Amino acid sequence: MTRVVVDVMLKPEILDPQGQAIQRALPSLGFDQVTAVRQGKHFELEVDGSDAGAVADQVARTLLANPVIEDFRVHVAD
Amino acid sequence: MTRVVVDVMLKPEILDPQGQAIQRALPSLGFDQVTAVRQGKHFELEVDGSDAGAVADQVARTLLANPVIEDFRVHVAD
Repeated sequence: MTRVVVDVMLKPEILDPQGQAIQRALPSLGFDQVTAVRQGKHFELEVDGSDAGAVADQVARTLLANPVIEDFRVHVAD
Repeated sequence: MTRVVVDVMLKPEILDPQGQAIQRALPSLGFDQVTAVRQGKHFELEVDGSDAGAVADQVARTLLANPVIEDFRVHVAD
């Protein structure tokens, strides 16, 4: 069994209102040093078999990300 | 400016209905090899100054994660 991590982010040209809301809240909490925030999704999959990375890539493409507006990265953890 | 990534996941003992919904959908899409899915949040911050990791850790603790039910990891990207 292999642990695979998939991170899904909005493409850079797509507005990210969640990230912007966080960024706007930070100065009033004392965090002036943070100049940009973008929020995405993080998935941890456990995959059986030898081709875990390829399976996770297909899962990400089919179900986890919307390739029109999102990019994803797959990392095989062990 | 330093890029810092913060990943926020529900603690292992907390139920994750989003992850379960994904996991239940996978066999009907042909992905029988995926035995577990957990979903969390992924943040990419740009932080000014030399103590970017420490600032991001404080931001995560204060605003990005609920430490009662969530764990977070901070990685300084460059």
